[in-house]
Amino acid sequence: MFKKIAGFSLICCLLLSIPLHAGAEKKGPRKNVIFMVMDGTNSDVITLARHFKGEPLALDEILTGGVRTYSLRSAITDSAAAATAMATGHKTTMDFIGMVPYQAQDGTVGGRPVANILEAAQEKGLATGLIATAPVQHATPAAFSAHSISRHRLEEIGWQQAHQNIDLILGGGKRYAFSASDKQGNAIRTQKDLLQSDSLPLYGYFADEDLAYELDRKVLHPEQPSLAEMTKKALRLLSQDHNGFFLFIEGSKVDFAGHKNDPVGMISEILAFDASVQEALTFAKEDQQTLLIAVADHGNGGLTMGNNRTDKTYPDTSPDHFVAPLKKAKYTVTGALSQLKPDRSNLKEVLNSYGLDGVSPQELVKLKNGQNIEQTMVQMMARRANLGFTTKGHSGEDVSLYSYGGAGVEHHPTGLLNNTELAEYVVKHLQLPSLAKLTDEKFVSAQEHFESKGFRTKIQKGDIGQPVFIAEKAGLTIQYPANQNIRYVNGKKETVNGVVVFNGMTFWIPMDKEQQDSWTPVSPNYAGI
Amino acid sequence: MFKKIAGFSLICCLLLSIPLHAGAEKKGPRKNVIFMVMDGTNSDVITLARHFKGEPLALDEILTGGVRTYSLRSAITDSAAAATAMATGHKTTMDFIGMVPYQAQDGTVGGRPVANILEAAQEKGLATGLIATAPVQHATPAAFSAHSISRHRLEEIGWQQAHQNIDLILGGGKRYAFSASDKQGNAIRTQKDLLQSDSLPLYGYFADEDLAYELDRKVLHPEQPSLAEMTKKALRLLSQDHNGFFLFIEGSKVDFAGHKNDPVGMISEILAFDASVQEALTFAKEDQQTLLIAVADHGNGGLTMGNNRTDKTYPDTSPDHFVAPLKKAKYTVTGALSQLKPDRSNLKEVLNSYGLDGVSPQELVKLKNGQNIEQTMVQMMARRANLGFTTKGHSGEDVSLYSYGGAGVEHHPTGLLNNTELAEYVVKHLQLPSLAKLTDEKFVSAQEHFESKGFRTKIQKGDIGQPVFIAEKAGLTIQYPANQNIRYVNGKKETVNGVVVFNGMTFWIPMDKEQQDSWTPVSPNYAGI
Repeated sequence: MFKKIAGFSLICCLLLSIPLHAGAEKKGPRKNVIFMVMDGTNSDVITLARHFKGEPLALDEILTGGVRTYSLRSAITDSAAAATAMATGHKTTMDFIGMVPYQAQDGTVGGRPVANILEAAQEKGLATGLIATAPVQHATPAAFSAHSISRHRLEEIGWQQAHQNIDLILGGGKRYAFSASDKQGNAIRTQKDLLQSDSLPLYGYFADEDLAYELDRKVLHPEQPSLAEMTKKALRLLSQDHNGFFLFIEGSKVDFAGHKNDPVGMISEILAFDASVQEALTFAKEDQQTLLIAVADHGNGGLTMGNNRTDKTYPDTSPDHFVAPLKKAKYTVTGALSQLKPDRSNLKEVLNSYGLDGVSPQELVKLKNGQNIEQTMVQMMARRANLGFTTKGHSGEDVSLYSYGGAGVEHHPTGLLNNTELAEYVVKHLQLPSLAKLTDEKFVSAQEHFESKGFRTKIQKGDIGQPVFIAEKAGLTIQYPANQNIRYVNGKKETVNGVVVFNGMTFWIPMDKEQQDSWTPVSPNYAGI
Repeated sequence: MFKKIAGFSLICCLLLSIPLHAGAEKKGPRKNVIFMVMDGTNSDVITLARHFKGEPLALDEILTGGVRTYSLRSAITDSAAAATAMATGHKTTMDFIGMVPYQAQDGTVGGRPVANILEAAQEKGLATGLIATAPVQHATPAAFSAHSISRHRLEEIGWQQAHQNIDLILGGGKRYAFSASDKQGNAIRTQKDLLQSDSLPLYGYFADEDLAYELDRKVLHPEQPSLAEMTKKALRLLSQDHNGFFLFIEGSKVDFAGHKNDPVGMISEILAFDASVQEALTFAKEDQQTLLIAVADHGNGGLTMGNNRTDKTYPDTSPDHFVAPLKKAKYTVTGALSQLKPDRSNLKEVLNSYGLDGVSPQELVKLKNGQNIEQTMVQMMARRANLGFTTKGHSGEDVSLYSYGGAGVEHHPTGLLNNTELAEYVVKHLQLPSLAKLTDEKFVSAQEHFESKGFRTKIQKGDIGQPVFIAEKAGLTIQYPANQNIRYVNGKKETVNGVVVFNGMTFWIPMDKEQQDSWTPVSPNYAGI
């Protein structure tokens, strides 16, 4: 799927993974981490999903505490800041991906990249994987794999992900994936491809944007894999690595449905996430060396079981009062409306497929002529299911923390934590290099560094649309294109030990020890072309 | 405070507590339990209260899991069913206090009393205490100390509480307390009385109904003690008992404020409860033999940080956007409106005292003529503080579980539990008799039992307004008045080992071993008069 050069370096790195990773050590049993995020999920939705399922969730077995979610400047976080906190240990501002606010020597303020736990795992030679039902370039998986001043720069994030030597990427976002149009190599496109895959690296983008809601997927998009299927395959393949692995998994679309206030979609995605948790938990229990963390990044929608219709009747409302209306839905509101004809002639069938039966002729006429059918539909459903919503945005409450660690896991997170504390559990369990130290090594201001060595520096737009940092001194020209893990030394391409990040003002480049000492172009990752 | 007879038996029991309690054992260090309930509290309110306080809560230190709250027939519980679940280990229906639905042999359905952990603690000879900021006869403390088919029978519950040999009762509910007008003995009325008290038994009803919200109390009712003050005193006195103690504490009025959707009141009561938790936690840490459990019984109001005004702006809303408007309030909405003159001439000052400054003249006129000032005020506050609410009733989500156990506590509750599981932790820690066995001993159908022994039985209204069960055989007349711990054998009064409960159809009576065998009137609790 990648252009030849990138593909080559990826495969090369994988085959030679131990010698290529400077920090790789092999002692004791291999340790693994599975880090799972259900985006935009409050406690209430989980309770409702359990009532819907009619039996305990996999999550129920591993509740261990709670997590504070606020971001650097806001009591309510966005997904970018929340995921950055969890992946890097740093609170940051909205929209920042793996970046913290930074004031340069000249006073300008921008984003400074900070190392994340996936990068630290790679540094130690572990296999790594990334799974999401959103585009994998979306805020949450992005913060575990990239660095950008804006979550909206999906292509930039996609470029970086392709140059991070990640062994497995599965999810949505084909549109933003680097060279996704190139079908070579281990790029797969369907559930069938996934089930038949048996080696790493493995890259599967199963939709241009996000994958279908689980409830819709089964009928409308059976060519896509489920989150549980992606999880199962990832665990089978990554666990073959002798150094252990770090796997990030996001159940992305509880949040999507939360923004719409669609309880059907929310439940669909909680249960899909929970099935993925079940796969992870089964693996972790068998393995006993795997730290499993599952957590929401924030609430969304403010759903409650109970609303202004139950002000007085709440003590006598059986679970069916909530669940039965929801169970009538064949599709989420998104799935249902995807079947609506432009002339809305099949509106009644569409409403039925969302579980809204018995709609009166007057209501039907109103809906046919209405502006926002989606909103009306979810409001009707919430009313029928006795559910309340307070917002179409995120909410600020603490979220639930789930974790499991077997005999080989010294500590797993419990109690009330800040979201920034989770990364440290991963670092400790995997005995990873310090994230602070890694940040210092992987993200050095190129301008400051080269100018201190007597280089002249500039930034210009490169051939392939990415900006390039250029340092020149006495016949030596060093070029770092943004969002890749390469540089050119007098035109000769070298692999560098991390992605090159440009925040719009400053280039941040990785540095090997030799480079730090002498700035002679010697690189242990030299791959040749 | 109690009538002489009751007072005598109470004191008698206390002085002779070990011989009087059949199951009393004294081995190993004395063990204690502090069981704390914050009524009607969801995770969101706790987060908001923490932002308001600006520093961590005592609760934050001891979060260990979550609790499922649904009742026997409803996905959303009332406080009676929730407290019955926690106190007795049984799910039940709304309004039932320490009772479960029961079908008698003749097919009639009623309530069957089930033993609670306070009764089990007494059975073992431990000291017991009950604290609430609501009337202590209110649903939650009631289910830890009484048995009634209706939470609304406050006098009935008050009678039972006075005959349960509880060593300490502090809170509201003077109006419903048995013989509360009798000022003898250890009955106290004010904060000053409380601070000066130094012995058990101790009974303090500091208001006819509920105590003031903490925020209002300081200015409007300084004669009342705070929850933390009651807690501190209770711990000092109860911890002098050589057998250990069981202390129940309710922060009752988060729920009151939740029903009103008054965020100021909710925060006031969370912080008051948390100060009480701090007292309990400090004690438990020093003692190391004390199991501390703190838990909500259910959510209420569906408060969220974030509402439809923050749909788009949420990622950039500092804590001040929520906290600053709330901090302007000098009183809760209840406290503020208690100062409103009948002609509403001081409405502006009243609004100001609730933090609603800058109200426009038009709004003021509207409010002056409005029907429901309280509702308008809380809605204005919620809007200013960017808070959402979904209901004026309870909500159905899992709630947070807090617990602490020191070195001498083998197990404290962690993970996701059902509310019915908490009682068993108390039983195990205190090595109490089985609740099932105790239920069989303490609540026997009087009619079935006496008729099986050849007695004729009837129920009639007694002298003092309480129904009386009467069994007669060959010159032997045994009378059990309801809601007390006495019986009359041929007119001679005896103390029995528990309260007599009447569910409207059936009398449930406690039984001593001797009684079970022969029904000869022999009682180890015989106190004489």
